[in-house]
Amino acid sequence: MRSFTSGRVLDAGRMRDALQSLLRPGDRVALEGDNQKQADFLAEALADCDPGVLHDLHLLISSISLREHLDVFERGVARRLDFAYAGPQSVRMAQLLADGKVEVGAVHTYVELYARMFVDLTPDVALLCAEQADREGNLYTGPGTEDTPTIAEAAAFRGGVVLVQVNELVERVPRVDIPGDWVDLIVESPRPYVLEPLFTRDPREIGQVSILMAMLALRGVYERHEVTTLNHGIGFDTAAIELILPTYGEELGLRGKICRHWTLNPHPTLIPAIESGWVESVHCFGGEPGTERYVAARPDVFFTGGDGSLRSNRVLCQLAGQYAVDMFIGSSLQIDADANSSTVTEGRLTGFGGAPNMGHDPHGRRHASPAWLSLLTGEAPALRGRKLVVQITQTFRSGGTPVFVESLDAVQVGKDSGMPIPPIMIYGDDVSHVVTEEGVAYLYKAAGLADRREALAAIAGATPVGRRLDERRVEALRRDGLVALPEDLKVDVRRARRSLLAARSVEDLVAWSGGLYDPPAQFRTW
Amino acid sequence: MRSFTSGRVLDAGRMRDALQSLLRPGDRVALEGDNQKQADFLAEALADCDPGVLHDLHLLISSISLREHLDVFERGVARRLDFAYAGPQSVRMAQLLADGKVEVGAVHTYVELYARMFVDLTPDVALLCAEQADREGNLYTGPGTEDTPTIAEAAAFRGGVVLVQVNELVERVPRVDIPGDWVDLIVESPRPYVLEPLFTRDPREIGQVSILMAMLALRGVYERHEVTTLNHGIGFDTAAIELILPTYGEELGLRGKICRHWTLNPHPTLIPAIESGWVESVHCFGGEPGTERYVAARPDVFFTGGDGSLRSNRVLCQLAGQYAVDMFIGSSLQIDADANSSTVTEGRLTGFGGAPNMGHDPHGRRHASPAWLSLLTGEAPALRGRKLVVQITQTFRSGGTPVFVESLDAVQVGKDSGMPIPPIMIYGDDVSHVVTEEGVAYLYKAAGLADRREALAAIAGATPVGRRLDERRVEALRRDGLVALPEDLKVDVRRARRSLLAARSVEDLVAWSGGLYDPPAQFRTW
Repeated sequence: MRSFTSGRVLDAGRMRDALQSLLRPGDRVALEGDNQKQADFLAEALADCDPGVLHDLHLLISSISLREHLDVFERGVARRLDFAYAGPQSVRMAQLLADGKVEVGAVHTYVELYARMFVDLTPDVALLCAEQADREGNLYTGPGTEDTPTIAEAAAFRGGVVLVQVNELVERVPRVDIPGDWVDLIVESPRPYVLEPLFTRDPREIGQVSILMAMLALRGVYERHEVTTLNHGIGFDTAAIELILPTYGEELGLRGKICRHWTLNPHPTLIPAIESGWVESVHCFGGEPGTERYVAARPDVFFTGGDGSLRSNRVLCQLAGQYAVDMFIGSSLQIDADANSSTVTEGRLTGFGGAPNMGHDPHGRRHASPAWLSLLTGEAPALRGRKLVVQITQTFRSGGTPVFVESLDAVQVGKDSGMPIPPIMIYGDDVSHVVTEEGVAYLYKAAGLADRREALAAIAGATPVGRRLDERRVEALRRDGLVALPEDLKVDVRRARRSLLAARSVEDLVAWSGGLYDPPAQFRTW
Repeated sequence: MRSFTSGRVLDAGRMRDALQSLLRPGDRVALEGDNQKQADFLAEALADCDPGVLHDLHLLISSISLREHLDVFERGVARRLDFAYAGPQSVRMAQLLADGKVEVGAVHTYVELYARMFVDLTPDVALLCAEQADREGNLYTGPGTEDTPTIAEAAAFRGGVVLVQVNELVERVPRVDIPGDWVDLIVESPRPYVLEPLFTRDPREIGQVSILMAMLALRGVYERHEVTTLNHGIGFDTAAIELILPTYGEELGLRGKICRHWTLNPHPTLIPAIESGWVESVHCFGGEPGTERYVAARPDVFFTGGDGSLRSNRVLCQLAGQYAVDMFIGSSLQIDADANSSTVTEGRLTGFGGAPNMGHDPHGRRHASPAWLSLLTGEAPALRGRKLVVQITQTFRSGGTPVFVESLDAVQVGKDSGMPIPPIMIYGDDVSHVVTEEGVAYLYKAAGLADRREALAAIAGATPVGRRLDERRVEALRRDGLVALPEDLKVDVRRARRSLLAARSVEDLVAWSGGLYDPPAQFRTW
């Protein structure tokens, strides 16, 4: 390698040759593709390698997001793949699989894939990214720390090589996120790494139905179970909840009583609630472009470093989201009659990401809290509480596609991809509540499978799952507390209007932030 | 604080005054007491503080191991406590609780407590320990990294103060385990921190019954389910398994087929298996005194740093043990008829430690493996595999105390301590197999609760749980594969002799290690 380096610093103009010299055919290579940030320069260089020289690599990529991630397989440089998520590349992924160009080890959740890096998938080489490095290799990841320390640790302490593309080589990094000790090689990338604003939702696109569901969730779930610690998934429905805390939530007198401690990325739609004094702490999986200055101004709420910028960490936030918070709430694209859900739709092998880690009841939890105890389960002496795992969704997606279906597309996709079991995102028996515009189903209260199905059907509207149930049965479920309709929760449906949102546009969010939130260009409409 | 420091370095002679100046009444203080290593010098200084000046502290201590941990409460310096384990101090702990001297927030598992440090129990001050520091505060933890980086991260990025006692201040640390950036203050302790050899088991104390159970486990569980990735708890029963791999396991032709990747501390009893080529990798929660030179000589197996010494990390190893390994096997002190188990016995509030995190089926796991799929569960489309959670125990403890009991002592201890739910270590519905000297119960195969109880009773011997079952029912359970007796597994009971152990003494382990294992004094009998 000596011909390509000066100290630890590699020549960016000769990355292809450097990789061909560094890697050996068959190597297990962790290529950083996180939920958000991407070691794109290294991915490109890898895709550019000569398959005559470098072939049969085994890639570990948590999120298949870039064209280059799959080019590497198409060109024959890599053969085997273990991954967690393939959102933007899921169609091509399925195609390469069918063509025998890629051999999938398994589809994981994020933390599962990292866990295996310490067991049977230890990386020979880690190709990572960071904002800055000094010449000793000390890394500054900036707000988007995400998964870099975890992958670096797996490789650095297992005799692996750690190579990092950085946006900038500096004399002194503003803070050390990863010690230079763990880093073998750095290269200054010709351009900053790719980072997607995955957690920004424009309040303009939040409709009345989402607002109604947010009201139902707040009264029927958050208030009823005194949920103080929680995780929100991505989506307009949970964004609506964030945005009615300072209005509807305030009216209900819930400030300080619910939603105090969060594990989630710095969602711009959370800004009004933070500014209204609802939020005591937020620990983040990753960052979010545009929130840097705002987050730095609120070290009382966010985890920030000595330099003032956010410190995120996916593994620790997943740990917190699994063992320390009482509720996960997220949306789904399809839910079957047993409440199994999936975001896999026809022809797409999207993978799992992080939701299954949040969206299950962790049997390893032992501490109690009021919310957890309110879902008491089991027989004495094995009585225990349970995590609230909430699915929130309209009964139909845009275009009139039902969310509640007889059979998940995931079942067929799993078969077509040769997966040993169907790629279910969240299992029905882990779901405690489902919220739709029709009402709330308290699945955790169901005595058996038949009751659970009926409770779900009662709020599934005119979908194939919902049409099954007759009115009198719905009345019985309401009496038994398995289902609550808006009137049962004293939610006035007429109030579900956009005026209830604390911010109705990205511009409003900027105003709430005191001008500190800098929305990415695609969200600027003014 | 300036009067007590020179740069980042505190004067060890004035720790009490420094702490009284640094801490404020009511502060939330994470005091490092891990499973193994203890920030004992800082604990002493804290216990020595004037309760007139410093009072009402809220302590977060994962393992209550030292007298000083409770002195702090007895003297009124601290009032509230969140913890995970209280082994050696469990009797006094219960007494202080009864006297109203300590107010317990909750009893956690280790990772749960760390998880909450990122949510609703963020520390104002962290009092930690490490082997060495340089004057910039860069820390070298040595082999016992354990929990230091996690607690440091929780405090350092939340505006908290990080104070570390080190065994030695040096010019340059051999490797950086925690960057100086995250560390505010260091103090050179007058003596090295306390570290207990918790994972050393003397093969001399392994009796024939343990060896028989090890044989049953190997044939009835490991071989049958092709367990390649696993975690072993502490105990003589699992030590026996480790020690018959190179003998009985070899005979069965199982090398390379089972037990390839491990998550566990560097158990000295694993040395013969490592030296016989059974073990491809071991990731560790912490270190183990005496194994330093041996581990350093096997970087092909252990995770080691550039300096050659072990890098452990409890949180990452727990993650690996939860999501990446197929089996957990551990011992228990009491098991009830429903297979609920506990290590809590009369009058002792021991807490949970790490076993519940390993000893449950993680519903957030999505990747498949042969072992996991061999316990297929659920109804289509929600079919999935399951983790092997194995309990191994003799039916009676020494002194003739039955392990299988009508009611766990934990139930009464929980009541007496005012816990909201009984402190069950591992829930019966999470247990897939139980191994005793009588045979193996395949609980995961049971169709219902009645079957599970019978399968367990069939191997519970002459205990109150075992006496219930009649012989013909046992025959039926064997036919249905819910129970296997030694003859069903083709285990020749007469071969369960100490000659089957690859090492029969600590001296033998030293020999296996090529003289690299340096047993602590209390294990040296020659």
